[in-house]
Amino acid sequence: MNERTTGPVPPSSDRVRVRRKPDRGHYDRATIDAILDASIVGSVGYVIDGQPYVTPTAIWRTGDRLFWHGSSASRMLRQTKGGLPVCITAFHLDALVLARSGFNHSLDYRSVMVLGRAYEVEDDEAKRAALRAFVEHLYPGRWDELRPPTSQELKATSVLWIEIAEASVKIRDIGAHDEPGDEAWPAWAGSIPIVTTFGTPVPDPFVQPGMETPVVALAPRLSTPRLPEEDW
Amino acid sequence: MNERTTGPVPPSSDRVRVRRKPDRGHYDRATIDAILDASIVGSVGYVIDGQPYVTPTAIWRTGDRLFWHGSSASRMLRQTKGGLPVCITAFHLDALVLARSGFNHSLDYRSVMVLGRAYEVEDDEAKRAALRAFVEHLYPGRWDELRPPTSQELKATSVLWIEIAEASVKIRDIGAHDEPGDEAWPAWAGSIPIVTTFGTPVPDPFVQPGMETPVVALAPRLSTPRLPEEDW
Repeated sequence: MNERTTGPVPPSSDRVRVRRKPDRGHYDRATIDAILDASIVGSVGYVIDGQPYVTPTAIWRTGDRLFWHGSSASRMLRQTKGGLPVCITAFHLDALVLARSGFNHSLDYRSVMVLGRAYEVEDDEAKRAALRAFVEHLYPGRWDELRPPTSQELKATSVLWIEIAEASVKIRDIGAHDEPGDEAWPAWAGSIPIVTTFGTPVPDPFVQPGMETPVVALAPRLSTPRLPEEDW
Repeated sequence: MNERTTGPVPPSSDRVRVRRKPDRGHYDRATIDAILDASIVGSVGYVIDGQPYVTPTAIWRTGDRLFWHGSSASRMLRQTKGGLPVCITAFHLDALVLARSGFNHSLDYRSVMVLGRAYEVEDDEAKRAALRAFVEHLYPGRWDELRPPTSQELKATSVLWIEIAEASVKIRDIGAHDEPGDEAWPAWAGSIPIVTTFGTPVPDPFVQPGMETPVVALAPRLSTPRLPEEDW
């Protein structure tokens, strides 16, 4: 979709509409997918007996579905499968924002939220394909190098998914922003970037000399377009 | 408490007991506090009309209370105050863990979960103290350099807290771990550390030459004791 001619995509529901600072909200699939695809881990929210729980877990996307997985014995997976409502949030912290008042201290970030119902991948072949997509999300080409999963391993693993239909993104990327009149206050103000990188790989004791270290594909810090100045 | 003589601290409730891989669970306040104090952002889970929501937000701890804040108009804050059940999770990703089977791919991480009921800080002086603690959590000594908050700013800000009573930590820090017999499979295996650092501070246009950049206090990657080998 060309946003220049059609205008911004509206929220898919009132539940995901960004109310506070609506100029930080984005609802187009390209932006939603970009932040999901830059994520290694998301926070899965679910409810048991009225109590909310939030479980961090690895997430990955294929097409219109967002996936997560774990042991078939896990409480989170047993509780969420079967069409129960969940909320999955992924968050990237980009900078600490220091202003001249405590009130205007903030963070620059990219955040995505997906609401919906969670279903289990039942079919063995579909489960295998989803687990392949998980590994390939982080390390393209790696799946075919691995010892294939056994039927016991597939059985012990549950894979869940949610449709990416009701979702929104919230981005703050404007750095420091003081109240008018505060600029002369004698305190430093600005941004302190947060940088996430991969360190030196640590082979386990069984890696043979000369074996190639796998590529890690994920861009740990996705670059995003800055908001136009008039939207600040 | 000296854990060498008293043994590990048991879970404070069954709801926070780590069921899967119980050796990864920790319930002592020193470990809980260390992971909370290393966190800039937590994920606040809450329920509206049966739907869970997860909102990432800045968190900070003072004594036995964990705090978060935001606009008094925010949906999350309006919904959670008044004794409603919440779950706050903070998560630190330490490494991607690559094994020789897809099944044993994993992550090394530190995670903390606090369950309880959320209350609002009502008193203006207590609210001011909490906001001071927020700024000082990240930048010790900075609060006194700032333009003090106005009563309008205090009114526009809600501060919430939860008692740190029902909480647990989950840590994985064991790197790659293959099934017996898989070690000879010809794929690289090991850990790829995730390193979070602060980048070069970016002053805003009003910072005067020679003004000192504030210290950022938070250790972005808290070092934790490795689990004893027999607990793997």
